[in-house]
Amino acid sequence: MKKHILAGAFSVCAFGGLTSCATSTVDDNNLEPVVSSFDIQTLGYVDPFIGTGGHGHTFPGAVVPFGMVQLSPDNPSKGWDWTSGYNYSDNQLLGFSHTHLSGTGVGDLLDVLVMPFRGEYNQRADNDLGRIVSEYSHENESASPGFYQVSLPDEQVEAELTATERSGVHRYTFSGHDDAKVLIDLGYAQNFDKSVATFMRVLDDHTLVGYRISTGWSDFQPTYFIAQFNQPFSYQFYREGEPQAGPFINTEKSEVVLNFGDIANQPLVAKVALSYVSIDGAKQNLAAEVPHFDFDNIKQKAQQLWAVQLAKFKVTDNDEQAKRKFYTALYHSFLAPQTFNDIDGSYFGADGSAHNSQEFKRYSLFSLWDTFRALHPLLTISNGERVNDMVSSMMAFYDETGLLPSWDLMANETDVMIGYHAVPVIVDAYFKGLTKVAPEQLFQALKASAMQERFGIDLFAKYGYVPSDLEVEAVSKTLEYAFDDWAIARLAKALNKEKDYQYFSQRAQSFKTLFDKQTGFMRGKTKTGDWVQNFSPTHVDHRTTDYTEANAWQYTWFVPHDVNGLMALFGGEAPFLEKLDTLFSTDSFMEGDVSPDISGLIGQYAHGNEPVHHVPYMYSLTSQKWKGEQRIKEIRDTMYRDDPDGLSGNDDVGQMSAWYVFSALGFYPLNPADGQYVLGTPQFEQVDIQLPKNKTFTVKSVLSGETSDGYVKQATLNGKPVNMNTISHNDVMQGGELVFTF
Amino acid sequence: MKKHILAGAFSVCAFGGLTSCATSTVDDNNLEPVVSSFDIQTLGYVDPFIGTGGHGHTFPGAVVPFGMVQLSPDNPSKGWDWTSGYNYSDNQLLGFSHTHLSGTGVGDLLDVLVMPFRGEYNQRADNDLGRIVSEYSHENESASPGFYQVSLPDEQVEAELTATERSGVHRYTFSGHDDAKVLIDLGYAQNFDKSVATFMRVLDDHTLVGYRISTGWSDFQPTYFIAQFNQPFSYQFYREGEPQAGPFINTEKSEVVLNFGDIANQPLVAKVALSYVSIDGAKQNLAAEVPHFDFDNIKQKAQQLWAVQLAKFKVTDNDEQAKRKFYTALYHSFLAPQTFNDIDGSYFGADGSAHNSQEFKRYSLFSLWDTFRALHPLLTISNGERVNDMVSSMMAFYDETGLLPSWDLMANETDVMIGYHAVPVIVDAYFKGLTKVAPEQLFQALKASAMQERFGIDLFAKYGYVPSDLEVEAVSKTLEYAFDDWAIARLAKALNKEKDYQYFSQRAQSFKTLFDKQTGFMRGKTKTGDWVQNFSPTHVDHRTTDYTEANAWQYTWFVPHDVNGLMALFGGEAPFLEKLDTLFSTDSFMEGDVSPDISGLIGQYAHGNEPVHHVPYMYSLTSQKWKGEQRIKEIRDTMYRDDPDGLSGNDDVGQMSAWYVFSALGFYPLNPADGQYVLGTPQFEQVDIQLPKNKTFTVKSVLSGETSDGYVKQATLNGKPVNMNTISHNDVMQGGELVFTF
Repeated sequence: MKKHILAGAFSVCAFGGLTSCATSTVDDNNLEPVVSSFDIQTLGYVDPFIGTGGHGHTFPGAVVPFGMVQLSPDNPSKGWDWTSGYNYSDNQLLGFSHTHLSGTGVGDLLDVLVMPFRGEYNQRADNDLGRIVSEYSHENESASPGFYQVSLPDEQVEAELTATERSGVHRYTFSGHDDAKVLIDLGYAQNFDKSVATFMRVLDDHTLVGYRISTGWSDFQPTYFIAQFNQPFSYQFYREGEPQAGPFINTEKSEVVLNFGDIANQPLVAKVALSYVSIDGAKQNLAAEVPHFDFDNIKQKAQQLWAVQLAKFKVTDNDEQAKRKFYTALYHSFLAPQTFNDIDGSYFGADGSAHNSQEFKRYSLFSLWDTFRALHPLLTISNGERVNDMVSSMMAFYDETGLLPSWDLMANETDVMIGYHAVPVIVDAYFKGLTKVAPEQLFQALKASAMQERFGIDLFAKYGYVPSDLEVEAVSKTLEYAFDDWAIARLAKALNKEKDYQYFSQRAQSFKTLFDKQTGFMRGKTKTGDWVQNFSPTHVDHRTTDYTEANAWQYTWFVPHDVNGLMALFGGEAPFLEKLDTLFSTDSFMEGDVSPDISGLIGQYAHGNEPVHHVPYMYSLTSQKWKGEQRIKEIRDTMYRDDPDGLSGNDDVGQMSAWYVFSALGFYPLNPADGQYVLGTPQFEQVDIQLPKNKTFTVKSVLSGETSDGYVKQATLNGKPVNMNTISHNDVMQGGELVFTF
Repeated sequence: MKKHILAGAFSVCAFGGLTSCATSTVDDNNLEPVVSSFDIQTLGYVDPFIGTGGHGHTFPGAVVPFGMVQLSPDNPSKGWDWTSGYNYSDNQLLGFSHTHLSGTGVGDLLDVLVMPFRGEYNQRADNDLGRIVSEYSHENESASPGFYQVSLPDEQVEAELTATERSGVHRYTFSGHDDAKVLIDLGYAQNFDKSVATFMRVLDDHTLVGYRISTGWSDFQPTYFIAQFNQPFSYQFYREGEPQAGPFINTEKSEVVLNFGDIANQPLVAKVALSYVSIDGAKQNLAAEVPHFDFDNIKQKAQQLWAVQLAKFKVTDNDEQAKRKFYTALYHSFLAPQTFNDIDGSYFGADGSAHNSQEFKRYSLFSLWDTFRALHPLLTISNGERVNDMVSSMMAFYDETGLLPSWDLMANETDVMIGYHAVPVIVDAYFKGLTKVAPEQLFQALKASAMQERFGIDLFAKYGYVPSDLEVEAVSKTLEYAFDDWAIARLAKALNKEKDYQYFSQRAQSFKTLFDKQTGFMRGKTKTGDWVQNFSPTHVDHRTTDYTEANAWQYTWFVPHDVNGLMALFGGEAPFLEKLDTLFSTDSFMEGDVSPDISGLIGQYAHGNEPVHHVPYMYSLTSQKWKGEQRIKEIRDTMYRDDPDGLSGNDDVGQMSAWYVFSALGFYPLNPADGQYVLGTPQFEQVDIQLPKNKTFTVKSVLSGETSDGYVKQATLNGKPVNMNTISHNDVMQGGELVFTF
């Protein structure tokens, strides 16, 4: 382990900016961060339970920033609100599995379920689920960054979990009996995931290795592991409850019961490393990351890694509740994309094969339809050194499949959402100087996305919009393709590709074709150019209409690259503002089959889903920016609560949280690919954003007098009034002071 | 490509014997054999259709010796007699897939189905199977080693197939239309195999790559491929018949239709390389093995590789039919174990992970319950240089799982048959000097097999036999475990492990415990030592009785390591011979649920299955060896026919064929782990066995006069009478002359 001597409290290299860390990829295992007590205290503001209730779909378990392992409890329920394995409404546990999705609308992962228990396995699992089910209470449960703890009275065990980047570490303290057992269940799955082949092998009386090959949302997901215990065990394999002898088991679904006998009050520590490549990879990961059984040491390191991340945003304010919401949002913003490669650089590619690269760290879990909006821009400020790896990961995906990822789940393209939103992420990274990939290579990959012959992309190119009679979700696709094309055009221009620039710039204007002046909405057209009939702006239906998880009210605003152009379609600022006001003030009633994704309603504005996330900031570019501030504050207050049921919709792999982070800071990437941030209204008295090269960008709120109406009177950047209510990424990264005067 | 200058007609290194080739593994791609016209003519004696009818379960397609690829036609039927994908009774084809099992009783593989066709895919596949079905006639079908050809009149295409070690090469000559298409179907599966994830990607208009992950008999089988064509194509992906756009497809089942349009009379050549590790591996394999599109060149090389193998046994005789049977049996003996690693040494291990070794060539498909008997001993004579790689492959399997393979299908333990018969194969290799693995390592692996706590092996150790009330197939297991233990004891003695020698020698005598003097049969005992009641020596039932795919008549003889001991149980040679005579002469009626495996009956002798294969040679160790000769000739004549329905039972990955090869030569490894061959009766006037170091072992039949009764009067080895009717492996390998006088 290398010990970095950190400048001040932190390593320069820990904060982003390729220039300072150009030659190495980020490996948190090589960092031994030194953090101040202030930073450690910041951890106390993170409540991992926020979002675990309602539709938030977050998980409360132990994880390090962007870690491969999310070691977290799993409830028996398989309902929609359990896609993360856990919902706060539950009080039964099946155990602790090692991989979890944060905030998704579809379930998968939950690999390698581990459950401490007592009694006879088959008796305990003799229920409808065929699994051991154990009661717990939130009163005896706690979680903080890198740590989770629960008491399982049925088992008389105290369970504690922590994690490194690629390993989960369990500490089980059994008491009052001499029957300490641990179940490892590879057949456990949820949603439409299922194991298709599993393997386990006992290497010695402390060590087990294995794999779980599953298919589901992720079509082909191999997960390899090693589990090592600090106490010796005897063991019994099972094949769906049927005992199987042998030093190994190789079947569709398998379990093993490890019997530790009488170890009362001696903590049983298990360290479990994963690899998506091989058992040898898991072994190497474990050896590098957890060379001992010192649970507290691992826990402390996990906390330090989180402290480093959170300390990048130093909040000075007395609003404790807002700080909990803010730091928890930061925490949820730094869970994914997940580390996907082994410590030796090996990774499982989208071609189903192992590869190795020392050049970059492979990430997976790109929920791009969600995260291109605010999460990836947030990472360009806070974790710039990871952006290169993420871009390189997407480019490797392109090398493996011929396309950039759209929704990459463990190196499988799920194609679950629309758009080619790797494009804005890559373009943004390029212009912010955060990728080392040659721009010509980037451009070819972007162009391949835009020239696909599926999902109506070819129709879009042919007709100038996606015809509704030829393709579902035609309006949403037209609008999102147009935005992505704007980003391609931006890069084309920079690379002096005039023809491409013209071509994609033209496609970027396609939104105009679908604006129906009569109704004032983006509305579908058939291939003959006629408006789709029976139009209702409040109508929704899942995956059958012209709009993706939304209606015309929600999608009409999706022109982040040309707000002026959109205003002009409405006939100018006044009618535009009138419509925008109505969006928030109109009745929330929607007819049709309303997906639970469409939540967090203010009028027809639905903050619980992504298409509208930029909309409140459109006010910022008008003469009535105070209306935006009002809505931003309303959304911050009502859609984000300091409570398990605190998120108004799926956190969607951090996008909901990233919106909050930006909106609390006081600015937002309305167009996430133009390097600009539009001002909103800051939540705190002061936030100091720690930046590479020892720079700091400070956001301050000051009162001009005692008569403040709560709206921003003026914003100054380094003492000068902010132009056009917009600051640039460069403004932020150079360091300085943004002062909002109320 | 290295060109070996071969001594005489053949490379010394091509024949076996570690001493001559100690530093390299065998890679047929590096050989450019020079063969004589005589050797090429020998190919004409191989009829790959033998065994494709009835229950033989062989396939007629193109393959090189021990090749990874078996490119062969697949019929629509899924019956038991189609486990190889093909049965001669059929007249419809689905296409040509790249992997096939030869002679097994369970189906799997059939990866990457390719079908040339014309017309609209969906129309053509609009039938119950959902697949294109094309008629063919045996009149327009032919096969020879390394080559298969069939006309498909429905498609107006002439299809020709050939193969390298890791590639299949197709040549399709379309005529009379301008609609040349090729389907590649990754969802195609048979038996309980099924694809769980597939991927295809078009790299350019000549090239496609992909994978097929399947589960079935083999729990987890990834197969990667690259397909490259000599003509450009346009393409359409399908997901179970539903068109899918995109440069790639990633789903449970997928197909692609490649459209070549008007290429009438220009041969379409496709070269398809496999890898069990990665797409990159398949690419490397293709580049190394088929760097061009010269079908005839590849075909010629395949023929040369076969000529080299067949020329190891140079038959001089006028019985053309017997020569066809003999050379076809040799051909079927050299199909497996299959090459399993990539050209760069990478292989998929039994731990589900990729590994790499330059030290040995990895083989898979070890049907050991069948092949330990005669196939592996045959390889020690004919392909000694491969034996080290096979032992190393089994040892790698041991490293990966903790156990040697029992029935290894694509690096998955199927546990489909009983016994730990890697043991005799390894012990035999050790004593014949054909493995470089340290004997201590070998011994630990053998011992792990014998000390398992499953399949009654632990009961066997505890009770001295497998109690019938505690374990199924208890008699068969007791007998086979005892034999395997004898082999372990042999190695223990050589390694001066006196305690182990005593222990396993004692277990080797366990057969005595189950001999029921009253009935004269091996008979089950309960754990209390009582005979199992309701005993009938003719009773069979699949996997529920004391006998494995057999009855007491068939299993009573399984004491290959102590024939004298078995005789003594009967009370001496006379009653032993009386019983042996009765075995062949008694009624063939069996009561119970008779498995089709129990075929090839002479009395209760069932040559179509393996347990009795050594039995005719037991006569050779008595004073009535002529009775054995009579039965051997009867079996050679009636159980092996020069006909598609020519095998009396499953070829079982070459074991049935290897029996024939030995039995035609005139000797057989009654005990396949003692380095001895018991004499039978030779089929031919003369066979010259080409051996390493330019040695030749000649077997001659001579008549002592015109009054021969057809029985062997005398056998001499290098002019001296053969002692005990047995010759040693060393006798053979030193070269010399074995003369049978009739």
